[in-house]
Amino acid sequence: MSDTRFDVVAIGNAIVDVIARADDAFLESEGLTKGSMRLIDAAEATQLYDRMGSGQETSGGSAANTVAGIAALGGKASFIGRVANDQLGQVFKHDIRALGVSYETPSGPIDPPTARCLILVTEDAQRTMNTFLGASQNLASADIEEDIIRSSAILYLEGYLWDPEVPRAAMRNAIDVARAAGRKVAFTLSDGFCVDRHRGDFRALIEGGQIDILFANEDEAMSLTQTDSFEDAANWLEGKAETVVLTRSEKGATALRGGERFTISAEPVDEVVDTTGAGDLFAAGVLVGMAQGKSMTESLTMGAICAAEVISHYGARPATDLKELIAQRLG
Amino acid sequence: MSDTRFDVVAIGNAIVDVIARADDAFLESEGLTKGSMRLIDAAEATQLYDRMGSGQETSGGSAANTVAGIAALGGKASFIGRVANDQLGQVFKHDIRALGVSYETPSGPIDPPTARCLILVTEDAQRTMNTFLGASQNLASADIEEDIIRSSAILYLEGYLWDPEVPRAAMRNAIDVARAAGRKVAFTLSDGFCVDRHRGDFRALIEGGQIDILFANEDEAMSLTQTDSFEDAANWLEGKAETVVLTRSEKGATALRGGERFTISAEPVDEVVDTTGAGDLFAAGVLVGMAQGKSMTESLTMGAICAAEVISHYGARPATDLKELIAQRLG
Repeated sequence: MSDTRFDVVAIGNAIVDVIARADDAFLESEGLTKGSMRLIDAAEATQLYDRMGSGQETSGGSAANTVAGIAALGGKASFIGRVANDQLGQVFKHDIRALGVSYETPSGPIDPPTARCLILVTEDAQRTMNTFLGASQNLASADIEEDIIRSSAILYLEGYLWDPEVPRAAMRNAIDVARAAGRKVAFTLSDGFCVDRHRGDFRALIEGGQIDILFANEDEAMSLTQTDSFEDAANWLEGKAETVVLTRSEKGATALRGGERFTISAEPVDEVVDTTGAGDLFAAGVLVGMAQGKSMTESLTMGAICAAEVISHYGARPATDLKELIAQRLG
Repeated sequence: MSDTRFDVVAIGNAIVDVIARADDAFLESEGLTKGSMRLIDAAEATQLYDRMGSGQETSGGSAANTVAGIAALGGKASFIGRVANDQLGQVFKHDIRALGVSYETPSGPIDPPTARCLILVTEDAQRTMNTFLGASQNLASADIEEDIIRSSAILYLEGYLWDPEVPRAAMRNAIDVARAAGRKVAFTLSDGFCVDRHRGDFRALIEGGQIDILFANEDEAMSLTQTDSFEDAANWLEGKAETVVLTRSEKGATALRGGERFTISAEPVDEVVDTTGAGDLFAAGVLVGMAQGKSMTESLTMGAICAAEVISHYGARPATDLKELIAQRLG
């Protein structure tokens, strides 16, 4: 789109992931629900970190992972999210810029520190996430450059950032700016428990026609629609947004658009190592496909290829050349 | 050894590694010598970090990697090295303790910050290291608990820490304490350029009978002895320390002990991904083998198994169960 600077601008948590291996017994002893994300405060973060194993740190954050993927695919992306003026904040800032993503949100003071997500990866490759929001929760409307929203084809928002109040207001404001400028708004439901916490808001946004492109996995879709099956959830969501993308892990994905359903299989993966970032990278592939004018099925396949890459190694950002992978698979 | 608390106490740089992929052209444009380690100051660290790609952070440091490996192998290990009171310092402290290594060195103030090593890994799996010593260079004699030295069977020192003056004096002091207590002193030459900088000191230590177990790779051994071949270097070193362990990457390793030579082949590796930490983990395997009273050949094989594991993935600390690998291979 020639009148836009960016294909996608995303607003999300600016997080550094701390990834460590753990076994089921450890999750149980800590009272953690495998595969979910929970919010923790500074004291809980310190306690859990003390008890968990040796880790590796990589930049993360759901929407940030998505724009990292978009940039890796050759798309033009911008990110808005708040870090603190500390070492982890420098790491986040460096990494997202090094990937070619525009990132200009001013850093907050040194306290609260940069957000971190303590991710425990079990042998079945599932990730259990414990997020200390830190500086992320102070992202304010004033931090959001409206010019960037207006000059981006798609505004992409993560449901996770609906938890803290200040960024929630900032995102509502960003939606208004994007809509007034005739831009598309994309939203990911993020997590089943997150949907539980904000079902009313999320439904109101969707039913109020505020969301053009909705991303959800099976669990989130059923939680939002309070149904017991993928079919029922899909039926409920049908037509509620211009495009609804529903991911189903190893069962593939389905898009609902213009009264039609487009379904693809998952891409094969030699070994699933760490599922962190699967949904984030799926969204990246789909958004770039759509921006490039690919068919819905091809766009879904691009999402599946990106998701397959990110689950084949530790960390939630692509580790190999996504453009090359797509070219090999789709020509 | 029943009168000791630790099998090994190591003194080294307390470093967080920042690992990023790079191509040969980038190394060239930065004027870097592939496979080597160079010291950089804070300004150079900032500049290089700005230009390098998106990274992942893991705890590192040569001797620290060795004690991490020793603990992973079931050995009792302690580490002495200085971090700052900052986020990367917390990461280093957490990781080494989470691996079961005793680590009680008091943190320095917030400035200079915790040491970091910007590691550029090229497609040939070679690593090029750029080390900002930060807080590490302020490790002083007062930071070294002499009781720990006296109650450790082996004192292990890294040549890299010979660069900064204050820790050099601390290490000399630690050698005296260990020798007075009848403990063994092990030393790794670390890097060919490091040997160039300190050849006189290193030779004096070795020829003065201060070192019982010497670790060197082919390049370091030739640099130390100013010879042109592995054979000549080995002949020079023969008998200069009780045990001399010479590693030769894919050509295996040789130990010189009691007038005999013990040679092993390298262990097979499916794909060499990142050679960072190969020598460090080799030393871990050898030291644990020796502590367990294994034969010299078996001890070398344990080193080779540990080195093979660490070069099969990114990062310089073991990612799989070393004890299980050894058990599978050696029974």
